[in-house]
Amino acid sequence: MAIKIYGPFRSPFVMAVALAIYEKDQEFELLMMDIKSPEYLNNFNPFGKIPSYQDEDITLFESKAIMRYIATKFADEGTPLLGSTIVEQALCNQWLEVHSHSFTQPMVEMARAIRGNPQQPDASVSKPALERVNNVLDTYEARLSTSKYLAGESYTLADITHTPFFYIFNAITDDENKKCITSRPHLHAWIQDISSRPAWKKLTERPENPHYKQ
Amino acid sequence: MAIKIYGPFRSPFVMAVALAIYEKDQEFELLMMDIKSPEYLNNFNPFGKIPSYQDEDITLFESKAIMRYIATKFADEGTPLLGSTIVEQALCNQWLEVHSHSFTQPMVEMARAIRGNPQQPDASVSKPALERVNNVLDTYEARLSTSKYLAGESYTLADITHTPFFYIFNAITDDENKKCITSRPHLHAWIQDISSRPAWKKLTERPENPHYKQ
Ligand SMILES: N[C@@H](CCC(=O)N[C@@H](CS)C(=O)NCC(=O)O)C(=O)O
Ligand SMILES: N[C@@H](CCC(=O)N[C@@H](CS)C(=O)NCC(=O)O)C(=O)O
Repeated sequence: MAIKIYGPFRSPFVMAVALAIYEKDQEFELLMMDIKSPEYLNNFNPFGKIPSYQDEDITLFESKAIMRYIATKFADEGTPLLGSTIVEQALCNQWLEVHSHSFTQPMVEMARAIRGNPQQPDASVSKPALERVNNVLDTYEARLSTSKYLAGESYTLADITHTPFFYIFNAITDDENKKCITSRPHLHAWIQDISSRPAWKKLTERPENPHYKQ
Repeated sequence: MAIKIYGPFRSPFVMAVALAIYEKDQEFELLMMDIKSPEYLNNFNPFGKIPSYQDEDITLFESKAIMRYIATKFADEGTPLLGSTIVEQALCNQWLEVHSHSFTQPMVEMARAIRGNPQQPDASVSKPALERVNNVLDTYEARLSTSKYLAGESYTLADITHTPFFYIFNAITDDENKKCITSRPHLHAWIQDISSRPAWKKLTERPENPHYKQ
């Protein structure tokens, strides 16, 4: 059975899983299902979220669990994604948790504010939301001024999980809002680095990508 | 250097890390620090949360990253905690994510409501909060009716991360609220199982445990 991912590329969590698969030189089918249908809730994810993943051995949900599974199952193919030492592995895991518990919520809040008022993106982003984003990104800037990637010298799942979020952020914001990124040199360089990888380029050129520009 | 954990046992995240250490037959020092002090923010966790962890090789925050590090570093000691097959490992990771993204928030909300009004615990738990807790626990009941532990037949970090939450829930609720648990036979049996392990008993008998009863 080919690898199947359920969910649209509109979701950065779906794109992160897809990116891990491409970094491992594997292919996948992208499928849609009604996530509130009994079929989806009973067979894929009882919490009714995307992405879900299926191959000949397992059905799995939660993007970070899926990415770890892919990184382990295809350990000897493509790019190693779990860190090259026990310390890098631990920091990869730490930054995956930071993504869940500190990064995602303010970024999504800001993206929602911008989308809700695309004509006046700046005005629509509330001061506290912007402040929270800036506080979080300060921490990333500090980290990335001491190491090439979040976990250390190796590219890992911690970088992968952030890639689609910055991509969507860039696609929907104007120059003023982009200053969050461009004003932080290490953060900016890191985003350019992780966004120029062949696996990511290949993914963004799929027709399912809503931000695809020819 | 001995293993150091920063943070009080009042926090279920701190207790989960401590439990992983005990399951690995290791010891630790429990230390307190002002989590908003520059010293803590600069050297331990820039997000100002507990727990943090320190040994001779690493300083780390985020409880699930710390637990994974302990499980890997002491792989050959005490209880194996990462699952015994690649599928169990994936499901351990999936349920760790479920704990983060679906379980914690409704449980904490309910605990807060009870604590806010200890004289009238039932009245204080709002209907929607209780409904969300019940929905989540239905999913656990379904899972635990098909396997002994969350990841499968092996006890793992996925069970560890839940143990302190149910312990605190039991310590602060009356019989009426406990029906969330006692009305679900597989969930109830699983909680009794994971709560009767020697490592957990040993931990709850430490004087730092605010719910310790002689
Ligand atoms: N923790 C989940 C988050 C997944 C998530 O939030 N997915 C969103 C789309 S970006 C979703 O399914 N939303 C549908 C809904 O909540 O009804 C993961 O990492 O997979
Ligand atoms: N995702 C974190 C959660 C830690 C957390 O929320 N800790 C709480 C105590 S239970 C805390 O530090 N609260 C202090 C604060 O938010 O100021 C982990 O798993 O370590």
